[in-house]
Amino acid sequence: MLEKLKKEVYDANIFLYQNNLVTLTWGNASGIDREKGYVVIKPSGVSYESLTPEMMVVVSLKDGSVIEGNLNPSSDTITHLELYRNFKEIKGVVHTHSTWATIMSQRGESLIPFGTTHADTFYGSVPCTRKLTKEEIESDYELNTGKVIVETFKDFNYREIPGVFVKHHGPFTWGSSPLKAAENALILETVSKMGYFTSLNIDSKSIGVDKYLLDKHYLRKHGKNAYYGQKEK
Amino acid sequence: MLEKLKKEVYDANIFLYQNNLVTLTWGNASGIDREKGYVVIKPSGVSYESLTPEMMVVVSLKDGSVIEGNLNPSSDTITHLELYRNFKEIKGVVHTHSTWATIMSQRGESLIPFGTTHADTFYGSVPCTRKLTKEEIESDYELNTGKVIVETFKDFNYREIPGVFVKHHGPFTWGSSPLKAAENALILETVSKMGYFTSLNIDSKSIGVDKYLLDKHYLRKHGKNAYYGQKEK
Amino acid sequence: MLEKLKKEVYDANIFLYQNNLVTLTWGNASGIDREKGYVVIKPSGVSYESLTPEMMVVVSLKDGSVIEGNLNPSSDTITHLELYRNFKEIKGVVHTHSTWATIMSQRGESLIPFGTTHADTFYGSVPCTRKLTKEEIESDYELNTGKVIVETFKDFNYREIPGVFVKHHGPFTWGSSPLKAAENALILETVSKMGYFTSLNIDSKSIGVDKYLLDKHYLRKHGKNAYYGQKEK
Amino acid sequence: MLEKLKKEVYDANIFLYQNNLVTLTWGNASGIDREKGYVVIKPSGVSYESLTPEMMVVVSLKDGSVIEGNLNPSSDTITHLELYRNFKEIKGVVHTHSTWATIMSQRGESLIPFGTTHADTFYGSVPCTRKLTKEEIESDYELNTGKVIVETFKDFNYREIPGVFVKHHGPFTWGSSPLKAAENALILETVSKMGYFTSLNIDSKSIGVDKYLLDKHYLRKHGKNAYYGQKEK
Repeated sequence: MLEKLKKEVYDANIFLYQNNLVTLTWGNASGIDREKGYVVIKPSGVSYESLTPEMMVVVSLKDGSVIEGNLNPSSDTITHLELYRNFKEIKGVVHTHSTWATIMSQRGESLIPFGTTHADTFYGSVPCTRKLTKEEIESDYELNTGKVIVETFKDFNYREIPGVFVKHHGPFTWGSSPLKAAENALILETVSKMGYFTSLNIDSKSIGVDKYLLDKHYLRKHGKNAYYGQKEK
Repeated sequence: MLEKLKKEVYDANIFLYQNNLVTLTWGNASGIDREKGYVVIKPSGVSYESLTPEMMVVVSLKDGSVIEGNLNPSSDTITHLELYRNFKEIKGVVHTHSTWATIMSQRGESLIPFGTTHADTFYGSVPCTRKLTKEEIESDYELNTGKVIVETFKDFNYREIPGVFVKHHGPFTWGSSPLKAAENALILETVSKMGYFTSLNIDSKSIGVDKYLLDKHYLRKHGKNAYYGQKEK
Repeated sequence: MLEKLKKEVYDANIFLYQNNLVTLTWGNASGIDREKGYVVIKPSGVSYESLTPEMMVVVSLKDGSVIEGNLNPSSDTITHLELYRNFKEIKGVVHTHSTWATIMSQRGESLIPFGTTHADTFYGSVPCTRKLTKEEIESDYELNTGKVIVETFKDFNYREIPGVFVKHHGPFTWGSSPLKAAENALILETVSKMGYFTSLNIDSKSIGVDKYLLDKHYLRKHGKNAYYGQKEK
Repeated sequence: MLEKLKKEVYDANIFLYQNNLVTLTWGNASGIDREKGYVVIKPSGVSYESLTPEMMVVVSLKDGSVIEGNLNPSSDTITHLELYRNFKEIKGVVHTHSTWATIMSQRGESLIPFGTTHADTFYGSVPCTRKLTKEEIESDYELNTGKVIVETFKDFNYREIPGVFVKHHGPFTWGSSPLKAAENALILETVSKMGYFTSLNIDSKSIGVDKYLLDKHYLRKHGKNAYYGQKEK
């Protein structure tokens, strides 16, 4: 079932591993078949070295029940599902504890666009969620993690800002495919590191990019007038 | 003698090397056979490239005398033994000079939990020992290093906090097997780096995690209600 | 057409990749055949893993029109051309978003020579351009990026300072061949990192090198009395 | 001639390369045959990838004249010779521009021992030389670089402190063999990075190690009562 999607999800997970975004088993990528209403995700606590496409777990978008697979799905599965249910156009979700994006999450800071590297992918600041309350943590924690991300995006467009820092936790990213979500995880890690050191000992507001530079770079890569890369076949 | 344990100890040492936790020969992993009262440990000053399982040295838990092996055991052996004698449930010990955990040790600071990466493994702050006195250093230095770790854990539970910074020296970690102790060394290095930059130029007390987030993450991975990973077979 | 130059440009692009100067597809190297008036450059948005010499695109120095190749040239092509048109002696241009040179660009700071590592290649400070205006960004952005670099070098000698930080963007470097331009990208990344941490929490003016040390190191590697390396055959 | 020593010098150079202590061609290791009065050193400006033992250049300890070899010796050869002439017991010298040791050199700071990682190899602070004068730079620069190192060690014992930061330049290290000198270059880079971040935003004098800890660690590895490692055969 869904062998092609399993391979895509597997490849996205391996991408995280090869780009040093995961330590031990701390990370997971998923993908969705929106017609069937099924999500494919990495099994929980399995090392990347021993991972195979066949190990990917198929769960129901609706309630997370396992449709196919002998292994438990990632413990973050319910968070992924909440994102798929609310961000209707995304087809891949990734969660990591990559170093610099996690540092941003732990500091609880948004990431201002300091340059074109950021603007090429994120059309504005990458926000950090509020803290979860005691009650949100003690029951339905993973679901509430998804809900607080969705709540944060009331003020942001998830299509234009494909990532978030969850306070005291780490980054989630998404995209039009599992691999795109994984690439966005790499980009968020990269711009988090650059942003950290760009703004160290400086008033960061004074060095954010102007709106017109943000527009130029985001729009030359995205949308109907994009001219970066090759034409899609 | 103890060929299986030697292989486990060898694997834990190689794990340290492959995860860039050791420079030159600065690190050692050990394991214990509690029934026999024997500890297996890396030989002193032997490079990781030339290490083999057969080179591991078997010593007595009681006094460190060599039971089997042609090479000298690690110069830190006596510290390992003191930990095994006092922390009755551990089966592996690791010592490294990994960069960020050593920096924490040199600064003499405890590591506050700033996020879930920390909380997944360490159920509270990772403490730093007091300095050893002149007398403690000049005689039975390695034994006293063990004693000051044990003394530090009067106020901490070694089962819940499987690691420590030895002041002016570096980290020791432990676990339910040599490999678990080595994984904890990797995790301590990772959260030390994250913690260093999380708290740089910030009042660190203001950004520690709340107790209920610490509980949630530690307890979803550890103890009888854990639900992370796969069921043990 | 220009198979030898395509291979050189390919090699320079691969050098960037192997030296961790590029993330995903963020970087490009080009070379020029000044007799023919043609520039060879990396195609836009193609991954380094799948790159081959044959994929390199040949464009006209005059207006950037594609002379040979089935793929779109790098979206930064017009910037490269402006540099070739104004810096008459260069034969290679490189653009990256390498971490530390991008951080310098985002901070908008020049890089003072703090030591001989810098002085061996850059005969003085590496400048940062002014910001582009709204108008310069909204029309002919890539051309104006080239123009602002050229404008910056009214006060600098491009032969002696083979690189620049473009404000809010990243570094451009150049040299006597595509590979030399790529090596200069690596050197600029290296001295940017060193410079960042050298001057952290210090008044940087107080620790710049003296003019006579700058002269000594630059001139022992460059110009008619150079004595570093082997005689050219 | 001196094939065994050439291989040792080659191995030491490759060690620098494999341990990421050199960028491009910025580094060199040498060794000496004190009976013959010959020094073997890396050729100038040759890439590490293409290096072979046969390329090593033999020069006279007395005046640096080439005894054997078709390539120019390292441009730093005269500095190496001055160290061999004054530090009578050393048999290997290394110079690099490794990142953190160069940052220390550029800041012009000595490296205080902050922990046992440092104390295991350096029996006290690693000093930084004074600046060379204009005259010292303009004539016999490489010789004067050697002289200012020797001058610095009037107050230090070169046997106990096998390395130095040359102000505005980078580290030199030495040892009982070319490989030992190269290992000391790796150790100096490692403790420089640790020391940089240990003392950031802290009064560094308040956290240096006590003399008795320095004694303990240095002397358990060096001298007649050393007990680290295996007995020499």
